[in-house]
Amino acid sequence: MTMIENELAEIRRLGGALHGKDFLATWDKSADELRSVLQIARCLMTLRENNISCRLFDSGLAVAHFRDQSTRTRFSYASGANLLGLALQDLDEGKSQISHGETARETANMISFLTEVIGIRDDMFLGAGHTYMVEMGRSLDDGYRHAVLPQRPMIVNLQSDIDHPTQSMADLLHLGQYFGGLDHLRGKKIVMSWAYSPSYGKPLSVPQGIIGLITRFGMRVVLAHPEGYDLIPEVVERAARQASESGGSFQRAGSMGEAFVDADIVYPKSWAPYHVMERRTALLHQNDTAGLKDLERECLANNARFTSWECSEAGMRRTRNGKALYMHCLPADISRVSCVRGEVQDSVFERYRIETYKEAGFKPYIVAAMILAGRFENPAEVLDNLASRGEKRLRS
Amino acid sequence: MTMIENELAEIRRLGGALHGKDFLATWDKSADELRSVLQIARCLMTLRENNISCRLFDSGLAVAHFRDQSTRTRFSYASGANLLGLALQDLDEGKSQISHGETARETANMISFLTEVIGIRDDMFLGAGHTYMVEMGRSLDDGYRHAVLPQRPMIVNLQSDIDHPTQSMADLLHLGQYFGGLDHLRGKKIVMSWAYSPSYGKPLSVPQGIIGLITRFGMRVVLAHPEGYDLIPEVVERAARQASESGGSFQRAGSMGEAFVDADIVYPKSWAPYHVMERRTALLHQNDTAGLKDLERECLANNARFTSWECSEAGMRRTRNGKALYMHCLPADISRVSCVRGEVQDSVFERYRIETYKEAGFKPYIVAAMILAGRFENPAEVLDNLASRGEKRLRS
Amino acid sequence: MTMIENELAEIRRLGGALHGKDFLATWDKSADELRSVLQIARCLMTLRENNISCRLFDSGLAVAHFRDQSTRTRFSYASGANLLGLALQDLDEGKSQISHGETARETANMISFLTEVIGIRDDMFLGAGHTYMVEMGRSLDDGYRHAVLPQRPMIVNLQSDIDHPTQSMADLLHLGQYFGGLDHLRGKKIVMSWAYSPSYGKPLSVPQGIIGLITRFGMRVVLAHPEGYDLIPEVVERAARQASESGGSFQRAGSMGEAFVDADIVYPKSWAPYHVMERRTALLHQNDTAGLKDLERECLANNARFTSWECSEAGMRRTRNGKALYMHCLPADISRVSCVRGEVQDSVFERYRIETYKEAGFKPYIVAAMILAGRFENPAEVLDNLASRGEKRLRS
Repeated sequence: MTMIENELAEIRRLGGALHGKDFLATWDKSADELRSVLQIARCLMTLRENNISCRLFDSGLAVAHFRDQSTRTRFSYASGANLLGLALQDLDEGKSQISHGETARETANMISFLTEVIGIRDDMFLGAGHTYMVEMGRSLDDGYRHAVLPQRPMIVNLQSDIDHPTQSMADLLHLGQYFGGLDHLRGKKIVMSWAYSPSYGKPLSVPQGIIGLITRFGMRVVLAHPEGYDLIPEVVERAARQASESGGSFQRAGSMGEAFVDADIVYPKSWAPYHVMERRTALLHQNDTAGLKDLERECLANNARFTSWECSEAGMRRTRNGKALYMHCLPADISRVSCVRGEVQDSVFERYRIETYKEAGFKPYIVAAMILAGRFENPAEVLDNLASRGEKRLRS
Repeated sequence: MTMIENELAEIRRLGGALHGKDFLATWDKSADELRSVLQIARCLMTLRENNISCRLFDSGLAVAHFRDQSTRTRFSYASGANLLGLALQDLDEGKSQISHGETARETANMISFLTEVIGIRDDMFLGAGHTYMVEMGRSLDDGYRHAVLPQRPMIVNLQSDIDHPTQSMADLLHLGQYFGGLDHLRGKKIVMSWAYSPSYGKPLSVPQGIIGLITRFGMRVVLAHPEGYDLIPEVVERAARQASESGGSFQRAGSMGEAFVDADIVYPKSWAPYHVMERRTALLHQNDTAGLKDLERECLANNARFTSWECSEAGMRRTRNGKALYMHCLPADISRVSCVRGEVQDSVFERYRIETYKEAGFKPYIVAAMILAGRFENPAEVLDNLASRGEKRLRS
Repeated sequence: MTMIENELAEIRRLGGALHGKDFLATWDKSADELRSVLQIARCLMTLRENNISCRLFDSGLAVAHFRDQSTRTRFSYASGANLLGLALQDLDEGKSQISHGETARETANMISFLTEVIGIRDDMFLGAGHTYMVEMGRSLDDGYRHAVLPQRPMIVNLQSDIDHPTQSMADLLHLGQYFGGLDHLRGKKIVMSWAYSPSYGKPLSVPQGIIGLITRFGMRVVLAHPEGYDLIPEVVERAARQASESGGSFQRAGSMGEAFVDADIVYPKSWAPYHVMERRTALLHQNDTAGLKDLERECLANNARFTSWECSEAGMRRTRNGKALYMHCLPADISRVSCVRGEVQDSVFERYRIETYKEAGFKPYIVAAMILAGRFENPAEVLDNLASRGEKRLRS
C-alpha cells in the first residue's frame, strides 16, 4: 500500500520508546516521539478516509474515568477507542469511593483485568490530577509486576491540573496541517494569550499544555496575560528552556494588543490565575461554600478590569497581514453570542469557526495514536499491516 | 442466497432516495420509501434468525441523545445499532449545556467526528423537539460541507413533539405481518382512539405518528377522542389529505364505542390535548411549578369525566366479529393492574399482551433498517452481500 | 491445538446441562457442572493469554441491571461480556419504574429482543433479590415460548440476597489454582469467619455463597461468628448436608481464634446478622429513616462488642504452619488503613494483598464461562473451534 508510505517511513525513522508508557505530559516525551504520534494519527485518518478498518483490538476495555464533566473530550476518547476496537466502560464513582491511597491502588487493579487503556480527566484540584494519574500508574505497575494483570493498561491524560496533551497535540497537528508540515512552523510567531471571560476558574491546563508543547518546534512563542494571571511557574520556566533549546524564542507580554503584532497564530483563551486556583483548591477541600462564593466574586471583579482583552477585529488587524490563524480549544466565550463580552469578537470567531472545528476534529485521532503507540511495540508495522490487510470499515 | 430473495427484489423495485437523509417524520418520505424500510427490516430479521451476521460497520458511534427518560426506545436503539456493529455513546448533558443556537451547532459537530448516526428523543416541549432535530441536521450539513466531518451522520427521530416514526413504522410492520402484507390493509378499518388514563401530559407523538402514517395505505382510519382532546391541527389535516390520496378514508368520532363498530384494528391510548401541551410548554419554560400543578389538577379533573373511554370487553364486542386487533405502544395503563381505571380492561389486554410484545419487537429492526437505508446507497446490494457472505452471528 | 487439550477433555467428561439455564445459585447446579464452568474459565484465560480471540458473539447485548452500586462486579461483568463480543447496555431505571409484577414481566421482554445475557445485582432487600431474578426468568420463558423473543437471554446472578455465585466461583477457581487442583482441596480446613467492621448492613450473600459452594468439595468447613450473627438458616442447613454428602465436614464455632486452629484457608469478613437484615428490609420498605438510624446505632453498638474478631497476626499464627491462605472478596476493612479497627490487621492483609487481587482477577473469566456455558450447547466444541481458528485478539 502506498497511501501511508511516507508517514510509515517517517515513523520508522523517528524511532522512539512510547511502547509500554503512559501519556501524561508532552514534556515527558522526546520531540521525535511527539512527531511520531502525529504521524500515526495522520495514518489513522488516511486509513479511515479510505474506508480501511483500524480495528486492532478484537476485545478489551477502554476505561473512561472522568472526574468532572466533559462532552468533547469524552467523545474524542470514545471515538478513538472505538476506532481501534475497544469498548468504552465508564468509571463514574464519586470521589468518596475511589479515594486516594490504599483504595486507589486496589481500584486501579480491579478495573484493569481486561483493560487496555484508562483515560483520566482530573483537572479541578491544583496539585491533584497529575499526582493521581502517576499514583494510578504505579498501582498498575505493581499489579502487572505481580501477574495480577495480564497486561499493563496504558493511562492517557485527558486533562490534568498541569497538562492537556490530547488537546495540545491535536492543536499541533492542526498547525502542521494548516502550514504544510511541522517544519514550516519554525520561526512562526504564536501568541498564547489570556482573554476576558465572564466566568472564572477555567483550568490552566490548556495554556500550560500549549506553551509546554509548541516551544519545542522552533517557534517564536509569546505568552500574554494581565499582571497576576500567572501559570504554574515550573511550566513557564520549562517553556522558556525548551524554546531556546529548539532554536525558537519565548517571551512574555502584558498586553494582548502588543503581543498580537505580526503574529502568525493567536490562541486567546481565559484562565484563572495560578494563585487563585490554589486558593480555590484549598476552599474546595474545606468544602467552604461561602469562601468559594467570595473568591468567585473577587475574581470576577478582577476579571472585569480586563474586558479589553478580547480578540477583536482591531486586534486581528495587527497580526501578520491581518490574517493570523485564530485557535481555540472550544467552547469559546463569544461576545454577543454566548455572553455580552467574551474572549473573542463574534465576527472574528465566525471567520475561523470552521478552522476551530477542524482543530477539534484531530483529537479522536490523537487519542487513538497515543493508544496505538503506547500499546503496540512497532506502530509502523501495525499500521502497515492494517493497510495491507485492507479490511473495509463500512462493509457495503 | 434465496432466504431474502423476494424482499430484495421488492427493495430494488421500490427504489427511493433515503440515502444521506435524516429520518424525522414518515410524511417526509414517499410511500415506496416507507415500504422499502419495512422490507429492509424484514431482511435483517430473517438474516439474524438464520444466524447471519448483520455487521456492516467495523467501527463507528451511534450517539444516543435522550432528553427525557426511556427504556424501550433506548433499548431498541441500542439493539438496532449493535446489530449493525455500531457502539452506543450517550450524550446525556443537561439542557443548560447543550442549548440551542450557536452552541447546538458546535456540539453537533463535536460529537460527530466518527459518528454514523444520532438518535434523538425530545418530546416534552411542543414546538421544540422536531425543530431541534432540524437544527442539528443543518449543523451537521454545515460541518460536512466544510469537511469538518468526514461523513454526515444521520439523525433518527426517536420521538419528537410531532412524530414518533420508529414506533409507527414498527406498528405498520406489525400490521403487515399480522394481516399477511401491507396490501391486505387496504380497506381495513383502524381506530386511533383516545383512552382514559389517571395521568396527564402523555405526548401527542404516538397518535399523530399513527394517523400520519397509516392514512397512506388505503385504510379506513377513524380518529376518536372526547371534545377538546385535539391533536396538532396540521397533522390531522395531513392525515385527511393522505387518506383520500391513498384511496382510503379519514373520519373523526366523538365516542370510542361508536368508533369501534366493525373495526379491524383498535389503538386506544391516552394523550394530552394539544392546547394543554401548549400551556404546559409555556409553564415549563417559565419554570412555573405552581402553574404546572394547577394545570395538572385541572386536566386530571377533566380527564376524570371520560373514564368510560376504556377499551373494554363490551367495546371489543362491537368490533369486526368481536376480534379486532388491539394495539398499544406500551406501557399501557391497564385497569385493575397498573391503576384502578385505565386505558384498557385487564382481560382485553391480557388476550393481546403477546401481540403487543411482538409489536414492540419490531422496533429494533426498524431502527436498524432506517440506519441502513440512510447510510448506505444501495440497501439491496448491501443486504445481498451480507447474505452471500453468510458470516455467523453466533460463532459456535 | 494442545494448549487447552486437557481442559477440553475434562469438560467433555463432566457433561452437564448448563445450556439454556440461568445461573442464580451454585446449589442449583451439579458439582460436575460447577467443575465444568471452572474449566471453561481456565480455557478462556489460556486463550486470551495466548492472544487468541474469544469473540463468540458478532452482535448482541449484555444487559447490566444493577440495583445498587458496584465497581468490581460491574467491571467483571463488562469485561467478561466484552471478551465474548457482547456490548454492555445499562438498565439503570429507578425502582419505581421497573417494579415487580405486571411491569417487570413486560420490561423483561422489552429489553431482551436482541439480548443474550442479563446480569442482575439485587442484594439490598432480604427476600427480594433472588425472587426478582426468578420472576424475571419466568417472564423471559413466557416471551420466548410465545416467540416474542428470538432467543431466551440467560440471567446471571451478580449478587442476590442469598447467593453471590460469580464471587464464590472465582474464589473456588482461586483455591483450585493455589492448591494445584480442586482434588487437592479435599480434607483441607477452611474457615468462613465473621470479622469486625465499623460499618453495618454488609450483605449475607458472600458468606452464604462461600459455605453453599465449598461444602461440596470434601473440605472441612468451619463457619465462625459471634452469637446472633446468623446467616439464613436454610443456607446453613444446606451447607451441612452438602458437606456430609461430599465426604467433608461442616462445623460451627463461636470464636475466630478457636476456628483458626490448623486452618488451611481463612476467609474473615463482616456481615450483618440475618434478623437485622430482616428488620432493615422492613424499615426500608416503610421508608422509616428514623428507624433505620436507630437500627444502625444499635447494630454498631453491638458490633463494637466484637472488635477482637480481627484477622490478626496472632490469629494467623494459629493456622497450619502459620501460613493459611487469607481470602477476601474486597474491599476489606483494613485496620489502620481504611479504618481504626477492621476485619484484618494491616500487615496480614499486605502479605496477602496480591493473592486477593489474583482472587478477584478470576471473576471476569467466571462471568464469561457462565455465559458461554449457558448460551452454547457444546462448550468444549466451541472452545476447541476458537483455539483452532486462532484469530488474534491483538492484531499487531
